[in-house]
Amino acid sequence: MSELEKQLKSCKQSSRAMLRITLDEKKRALLTWKEILDSNRQSLLNANQKDLNEQKNKISSALYQRLELTESKIDSLVQGIQDLADMPDIVGHVNFTTDLDEKLQLKQVTVPIGVIGVIFESRPDVIPQILSLILKSSNVGILKGGKEAYHSNAAFMKLVDELNSKCPYLPDNWATLVESRDEINSVLKYDQYIDLMIPRGSNELVSHVMNNTKIPVLGHADGICHIYLDSTADIEKSIPVIVDSKIQYPSACNALETLLIHQDLSEKVILRVLHSLIDAGVKIFGCDRTRKIDASFDPVENWSREYGDLQLSVKIVENMGDAVLHINEFGSGHTDVILTESTPLAEEFFQVVDSSSVMQNSSTRFADGFRYGFGAEVGISTAKTHARGPVGIEGLVIYKYQLIGNGQTVKDYTGPEAKPFLHNRH
Amino acid sequence: MSELEKQLKSCKQSSRAMLRITLDEKKRALLTWKEILDSNRQSLLNANQKDLNEQKNKISSALYQRLELTESKIDSLVQGIQDLADMPDIVGHVNFTTDLDEKLQLKQVTVPIGVIGVIFESRPDVIPQILSLILKSSNVGILKGGKEAYHSNAAFMKLVDELNSKCPYLPDNWATLVESRDEINSVLKYDQYIDLMIPRGSNELVSHVMNNTKIPVLGHADGICHIYLDSTADIEKSIPVIVDSKIQYPSACNALETLLIHQDLSEKVILRVLHSLIDAGVKIFGCDRTRKIDASFDPVENWSREYGDLQLSVKIVENMGDAVLHINEFGSGHTDVILTESTPLAEEFFQVVDSSSVMQNSSTRFADGFRYGFGAEVGISTAKTHARGPVGIEGLVIYKYQLIGNGQTVKDYTGPEAKPFLHNRH
Repeated sequence: MSELEKQLKSCKQSSRAMLRITLDEKKRALLTWKEILDSNRQSLLNANQKDLNEQKNKISSALYQRLELTESKIDSLVQGIQDLADMPDIVGHVNFTTDLDEKLQLKQVTVPIGVIGVIFESRPDVIPQILSLILKSSNVGILKGGKEAYHSNAAFMKLVDELNSKCPYLPDNWATLVESRDEINSVLKYDQYIDLMIPRGSNELVSHVMNNTKIPVLGHADGICHIYLDSTADIEKSIPVIVDSKIQYPSACNALETLLIHQDLSEKVILRVLHSLIDAGVKIFGCDRTRKIDASFDPVENWSREYGDLQLSVKIVENMGDAVLHINEFGSGHTDVILTESTPLAEEFFQVVDSSSVMQNSSTRFADGFRYGFGAEVGISTAKTHARGPVGIEGLVIYKYQLIGNGQTVKDYTGPEAKPFLHNRH
Repeated sequence: MSELEKQLKSCKQSSRAMLRITLDEKKRALLTWKEILDSNRQSLLNANQKDLNEQKNKISSALYQRLELTESKIDSLVQGIQDLADMPDIVGHVNFTTDLDEKLQLKQVTVPIGVIGVIFESRPDVIPQILSLILKSSNVGILKGGKEAYHSNAAFMKLVDELNSKCPYLPDNWATLVESRDEINSVLKYDQYIDLMIPRGSNELVSHVMNNTKIPVLGHADGICHIYLDSTADIEKSIPVIVDSKIQYPSACNALETLLIHQDLSEKVILRVLHSLIDAGVKIFGCDRTRKIDASFDPVENWSREYGDLQLSVKIVENMGDAVLHINEFGSGHTDVILTESTPLAEEFFQVVDSSSVMQNSSTRFADGFRYGFGAEVGISTAKTHARGPVGIEGLVIYKYQLIGNGQTVKDYTGPEAKPFLHNRH
């Protein structure tokens, strides 16, 4: 058994010990964790500065920005942990109770998933944030960071050691950082020890995880979000929504990538919409019909491309059906919007667009766990099972069935003389 | 693009068309399907007889038994379809609504998963049963049967053609049987077209599916179920539960495989328990301590073995902690029982045993969708995400978010002047 496998096996064992942890113990641990982070700001910022110095001009500017830890990032971490500590328990909740018969009662009760694997690049603040969610939900975490954040990650894990020594009731290895010399792929093959994988980083990282493991993955590789501007839209209301969706944070997964425009809108209106984008610094790529209106636009090369930048694909479509076909073919099931004043049209769009978030007259950028009111976000998922769209801490729990009987046997409920079940659900 | 891929791609497209289907259309289709099955009993039984004749002495007796279609199996199919037709809709249900702000309302709404792949051996009645569940939940089904049921499967699919011609609003390919000459593995590689895989058959089949696909799998390879007989148990109540768990249907996945006995019980009581099993035809395999009580028992060779037959492993343990360690190490997370009159002890067992069903004083055989009151069972899952334990039709749905706004942009809810969110959930 390799060192890595021994480590993962011990995490699985710790996940059983976590099943005994109480809400009060978790609250004390979270508040201790908050205090430790709050009182070690300088050592965290110093370690982070070492990483920043070493990585300068070595990594992309996007990665470099995410690598940076700031006082305000630590502020919001600390506030988020306080909020989690004050929340009621998420495990041990009885979803429903069914009396199968007298003195034979079934309960469905929420429980932790077990061992959560988190793979992340840059952003060292993933460690304190995801560990708080993992602790609150009584799970165990296996973290695999990138070497670009080596000093920052080590500084956070040193604080985890301090937490563990102050809260000795936390099981060994409830939070483990896998050293960076182990390859990601070697972690991904241990589906017997890891129950759920959460990749946090570039599309390439997420795709790599999704394509190389049998462990269920909570995440999204692409965010090809669309807005469909119908001929029934209120243009005054629509333009700010389109501009916000594209420019408010262009590299986010929920930023707009393709604008679909109904052909019945006048050239004048279409140009007004496009120029409000151009004025905001957006470069337009167009379909053939768009380029007939303004030949200076470059043609779209790939409708599935995620620009992640101030660039936008524009297509003129015949009607909503045409727009929906485009979205279902080229979209990534993330977030898609219709701009219309017609409720029946919006309802039809909501029904037939097979994406995790569908919206009417609002910015794609609202698709986010915090904005949806879920508190801290575990991730955004484009999967079709378990959890979909922005996922809060609920994505880290599952349920078990508990049956309390009084000596009942199945034989008595079978065959021609079978006792009937009550099946009273309450 | 291979013929198979073309077929699967067309199924994915049909899954979008299924999003438009109404509850009334589904009800009419289910009642039509029921009538077609009811009035074609003889042709189904004739086709099945051909398979039975061809397979006689060629396949195992277990497979042969499952291959057989009977009038009473058709009766319960027909009744099950009537029940489903009368049920309220499972998609389009609003789980919760949150006002993010005035005129900015979020809803979480249930939707079908999309394309459900079903791989099954023998049992041709899987086709009408699973297709009814798939139709009721507005999904699309891709079925892959075994060649041993060739004639029966073809007869069922001929009736699906009849259903489609009577209900032309059903999209093309909503129910497709993949021809048996295509290998299972070629289906398993198309995760871009299939959203959930349900294997129905032997442990080998299920393991093969789980180990060879990135598609989420709803199922269980093993059913290593335990009963722990504590020293605080009521023996009169416990013996029938142990015997029922072992002999009521020994080849079922929820049958008992290992009995763990507290060491404080007297030899006399232990022998009484074991002889009630032996009298029922069960062969006992024992741990060293059990074999000291009766040296005629064979030793246990593998604590993770699923006998699926009238055979049982028996171990004497020091206490409940010892029993729990054994269950978490050798069990399969399916169903585990404690026999005790002590409520605190049962509560602790429920908390620390990490299985999808945990029980007190009742037979393992109750772990079943029908007995749990879920109606028709989609399968039993030992996964830790999406659906766990016996899974009803709820396992075939997921949700999407719908956001209805009035032109809101994220810019207004960001930064130092940010408007606050309301986040009123109701």
